[in-house]
Amino acid sequence: MNIPLNHIFSCSSCECTYEPSPNTLSCRSCEAPLNVIYYEELSHSACPAGWTGPDIPLPVVQQSDYITLGEGNTPIVKLKNSNGVLPENVYAKLEYQNPTGSFKDRGTAIMLSVLNTMGVTELVEDSSGNAGASISAYSANSNIRAHIFAPETTPLSKMIQIQIYGAETYSIPGTREDATFAAREFAKKFSHIYASHNLSPYFIEGTKIFAYELFDQLANEMPDDIIMPVGNGSLYLGMWKGINELHEKGLITKIPRLHCVQARAVMPIVAAHNGEFWDKAKLGLTKAGGIAVGSPPRLHQVLDVLKKSNGSSIAVDEDEITLWHTRLPKSEGIYAEPTSAAAFAGAQKLLEMGVIESASRVLIPVTGFGMKDKDPS
Amino acid sequence: MNIPLNHIFSCSSCECTYEPSPNTLSCRSCEAPLNVIYYEELSHSACPAGWTGPDIPLPVVQQSDYITLGEGNTPIVKLKNSNGVLPENVYAKLEYQNPTGSFKDRGTAIMLSVLNTMGVTELVEDSSGNAGASISAYSANSNIRAHIFAPETTPLSKMIQIQIYGAETYSIPGTREDATFAAREFAKKFSHIYASHNLSPYFIEGTKIFAYELFDQLANEMPDDIIMPVGNGSLYLGMWKGINELHEKGLITKIPRLHCVQARAVMPIVAAHNGEFWDKAKLGLTKAGGIAVGSPPRLHQVLDVLKKSNGSSIAVDEDEITLWHTRLPKSEGIYAEPTSAAAFAGAQKLLEMGVIESASRVLIPVTGFGMKDKDPS
Repeated sequence: MNIPLNHIFSCSSCECTYEPSPNTLSCRSCEAPLNVIYYEELSHSACPAGWTGPDIPLPVVQQSDYITLGEGNTPIVKLKNSNGVLPENVYAKLEYQNPTGSFKDRGTAIMLSVLNTMGVTELVEDSSGNAGASISAYSANSNIRAHIFAPETTPLSKMIQIQIYGAETYSIPGTREDATFAAREFAKKFSHIYASHNLSPYFIEGTKIFAYELFDQLANEMPDDIIMPVGNGSLYLGMWKGINELHEKGLITKIPRLHCVQARAVMPIVAAHNGEFWDKAKLGLTKAGGIAVGSPPRLHQVLDVLKKSNGSSIAVDEDEITLWHTRLPKSEGIYAEPTSAAAFAGAQKLLEMGVIESASRVLIPVTGFGMKDKDPS
Repeated sequence: MNIPLNHIFSCSSCECTYEPSPNTLSCRSCEAPLNVIYYEELSHSACPAGWTGPDIPLPVVQQSDYITLGEGNTPIVKLKNSNGVLPENVYAKLEYQNPTGSFKDRGTAIMLSVLNTMGVTELVEDSSGNAGASISAYSANSNIRAHIFAPETTPLSKMIQIQIYGAETYSIPGTREDATFAAREFAKKFSHIYASHNLSPYFIEGTKIFAYELFDQLANEMPDDIIMPVGNGSLYLGMWKGINELHEKGLITKIPRLHCVQARAVMPIVAAHNGEFWDKAKLGLTKAGGIAVGSPPRLHQVLDVLKKSNGSSIAVDEDEITLWHTRLPKSEGIYAEPTSAAAFAGAQKLLEMGVIESASRVLIPVTGFGMKDKDPS
């Protein structure tokens, strides 16, 4: 086993630290999820293919260990036809132009690169669809056998995509959490690695590259507000980590506000942040399946970033998601999945509420491709 | 009407030239398709967003006229697990990481930019699916009303994608050519612009950017062989034009061989090039719908490039396409549509035949995303 040597794991809640290993996913003392902390003497990491921006601390040391299917380097386009309902300057970063059609490929590339270096040859994951497809694809490329557990409400098109790349799939009745439970039990029973994109500290190291790209593409014109659909928060927390690293290096001076959007049917973050009533026992169905997470394991970290970045959290209704899911392709030529459409619905609400001003520079990641999900209903 | 002033149209067969207009699609003397020729005194064109490579002559003059949904700038990945069946150094350029999931977005961006500048507000197009989705998306972004005619064999997922962006769709019984005929009749009847991606001289000006990107990404390591699925040849001819421009500027010295792959069921180019027997009246069905073109209007140009680039043309069987459609995602994590898989089947055959050597540097564009087409059968 060839462990990369430039980092350790640190508990996100207490002071514990751990040597990196594929099986270390939470603090043995307080059970909180872990983060990657780099040794100060870090001199060099591998970097994404073709990257010419500032150095990015990454847990992949050797360039030859960096597994890539061409993730990242996604375009930013300015919305043209949404004035009046959104702020005047809204930029969409098109994360659906990733290898498997979602931003998850950023996290998967780094997570699988490290696990592969550590000698992992079989893994288990649970996913509402996008992470499953991503991990299935990168596992195929790395000759790793993948077992993906998905809730039975996962759109058929996403299940087929997971299978196309060769993973074994398991359709689990019940909630998103039931799929997580089944995956953990399976991993334990067969002594496989549980490569959870929500828990692995490596996943966020991949999604943070989004922030570095923003800086590389926009330089001194970083957005005032970034509005994201948030379920487990893997992009949200990666964004924050990247922005902080850029800030610490003195490359940016302004910290954008990072706003969370959730579906009203599944809004644990909004409820915890705003003190709004939401009964988890009555967890509803939402077409925004990518953010339908009732108990996000990194909830306390998301709440911390909301506070530190002066962000807002907001819930949107199903008809608002549907409206933007239909409107975006017809008005802008952007075909997002419902989860991503929720962020635009949130942006509209934040503007109407006066949280965001019409003159704000707003960036919204379009996290997944519409082709991956069912048709607008 | 604001006609861009840096080019004229030139007949691809005789000496005629024409002033650019949206309605000028073929030579009034010999009926051959037209090409864009730039005035020698051309000093500047607009360029793709974020482009830092050499100047590209384009028919879009003002940067503000350049309509983009984030097309191009696609990654190149090296195959890892296909040794033995393919040459040792095969690079895939992932054109499915374009805004609507296919390389057509390159051509559409330029064609729609010019048509929009010329004041076009309504257009007609025929497509087997990918070009239709692309033109529907860019039309939505440009507030242009689009009518898309597709053969009734077009996969449902592609038809839905075309509709999602707001175009009117027309499902036409019969062959790909029947859809073309219906589109032309409709355009004539209602005096709409027939914005054919196969005939418009602007489309190839967009696809040629692929060649410039190759140069920008690979510099002095340009491939020896480029293997493409070819139906109408819009990428093939664009590639050739781009490579020639780069060569004329002295930026590259070596001209790659450009090889054509077709499905055996629909192989007019292979038949014309190799003198193989193929009865157009018995035009068969193929899962490679993107190259199922019985009468490509630019056939003579494709044959000319085959000759000048010292390329080969080859037909592949349905079971070979299916094999690569299934193998690519499972072995490499690359989920291509069947049309793109055909090029890998062709690469295997060209290697087996000794046309390509095992040590050749081979590039294959993965022209469209597997999610857009039906599942492997």
